[in-house]
Amino acid sequence: MNTVKTINEVRNQVKVWKKEGYSIALVPTMGSLHAGHASLISRAAKENEKVVVSIFVNPIQFGPSEDLDSYPRDLNKDEIVCEGAGADLIFAPKATEMYYKDIEASVSVKELAAGLCGAKRPNHFAGVCTVVSKLFNIIPADKAYFGQKDAQQLAIIKRMVRDLNFDIEIIGCPIIREKDGLAKSSRNVYLSPEERQAALILNKSLTKCREALSNGERSTNLLKEIIKAQIQTETLARIDYIEIVDALSLDAIDFANKPILVAIAIYIGKTRLIDNFIYEA
Amino acid sequence: MNTVKTINEVRNQVKVWKKEGYSIALVPTMGSLHAGHASLISRAAKENEKVVVSIFVNPIQFGPSEDLDSYPRDLNKDEIVCEGAGADLIFAPKATEMYYKDIEASVSVKELAAGLCGAKRPNHFAGVCTVVSKLFNIIPADKAYFGQKDAQQLAIIKRMVRDLNFDIEIIGCPIIREKDGLAKSSRNVYLSPEERQAALILNKSLTKCREALSNGERSTNLLKEIIKAQIQTETLARIDYIEIVDALSLDAIDFANKPILVAIAIYIGKTRLIDNFIYEA
Repeated sequence: MNTVKTINEVRNQVKVWKKEGYSIALVPTMGSLHAGHASLISRAAKENEKVVVSIFVNPIQFGPSEDLDSYPRDLNKDEIVCEGAGADLIFAPKATEMYYKDIEASVSVKELAAGLCGAKRPNHFAGVCTVVSKLFNIIPADKAYFGQKDAQQLAIIKRMVRDLNFDIEIIGCPIIREKDGLAKSSRNVYLSPEERQAALILNKSLTKCREALSNGERSTNLLKEIIKAQIQTETLARIDYIEIVDALSLDAIDFANKPILVAIAIYIGKTRLIDNFIYEA
Repeated sequence: MNTVKTINEVRNQVKVWKKEGYSIALVPTMGSLHAGHASLISRAAKENEKVVVSIFVNPIQFGPSEDLDSYPRDLNKDEIVCEGAGADLIFAPKATEMYYKDIEASVSVKELAAGLCGAKRPNHFAGVCTVVSKLFNIIPADKAYFGQKDAQQLAIIKRMVRDLNFDIEIIGCPIIREKDGLAKSSRNVYLSPEERQAALILNKSLTKCREALSNGERSTNLLKEIIKAQIQTETLARIDYIEIVDALSLDAIDFANKPILVAIAIYIGKTRLIDNFIYEA
């Protein structure tokens, strides 16, 4: 496995592979790789002959008051995770390699970016769409792998690929959790031991919601109340949002009578964590 | 030469050609092909082994009060022009093939689309960037050919390709003119005989400006006054804009001391015509 830092290097390697007829996978990441990322890479390696992992903390998807500077970075550790999971090449560019100072072009979506995480992160998903478009153009893979953990991102990328005719298949992969149920996240390292314990409330509250759905509850207002009541039992937790939306359009719905996305964002201390599940009602 | 109407058909043909190692050119057009388009196709055929011409009157680049419905369409005539100029394949999709009703994703540029034609056509260049991105993704050509006649469009496409890392070379081709100097345009068919004569004022006024530049004039205000005075001699002409800008950034400038774009848009009756030249000051 090799690590390259320039667009030319990764492009040339991928061109050689394509000429040789290899199927190619892309796993776009911001590094700080954990078992969730490893599961994407492993699956990509099972389903494709060559796997490229991009590691790039994309500045334009962070808001001015967000954690761009403190976002955890450790390329040496990431290389070990990639190699262990079966990656063939890491593309780890600097920001100056990816963005000109006078960048003009961007890719965005409308309604899909308006709610959920997009409501308080107004330029976040344009930043995601732009960098993912760039990566798709730099690394013309057959398939790209994204985690269901970022459910809104996954829905947006799928729609972007459809709308702009990118010739790539998007594979969504299940959330990977710690043994106690906390969804794996690069931001979990921000948590103190006490906050780490409090963070279990995300999965606990979603579990309550899933139980209510299994028992036949279909009112999304009531389901959201169930989640809210559960979260409020945790004094360290502060709710950002609790949403139940159409799993494809991300439109708010009153009754859960089709595939829905139940998504929550919660602050534990200063750390914002998200979790979700899809329910095929 | 063959004409196909679906994304799958054109994509499959281009994939076969790429596998066989052919170099591929794309000439994106809105049809109603004239000698200007033919010059793009001929050059593409000289420089590449296979030439795809797309013919698509792109609805999302027209404003609500613009000429989408009346825009001239004649596929049979266009096929003759394409074949004569050396095209190998026409991609002529319907609007429903290109756009889902619930389209969410778009591509846009910021400052480059703010002035010139973009000032009064606020969504025009986002429509252009979006459809050209789609065409680049559907037809992964080595080179794409655009006319210098649409100078702002050419500058924007070049920047979009740079910023989003499309793996394609953009070739700008010179304006093709009638014998009397009028720039070839699909919209010239709108002109009555009297208007057709009046339309010569576009090239005439630009020629005056070029003469002044050759004589050493560098004040863009004075140069614009020279164009304006000339246009005002034509009673059927109404000025939309007269601009002199940096040829790359399209920023307004006071002194013509680097490569500049001199661009004008003029109504002759109800028909809006554009013309321009680049001057390497």
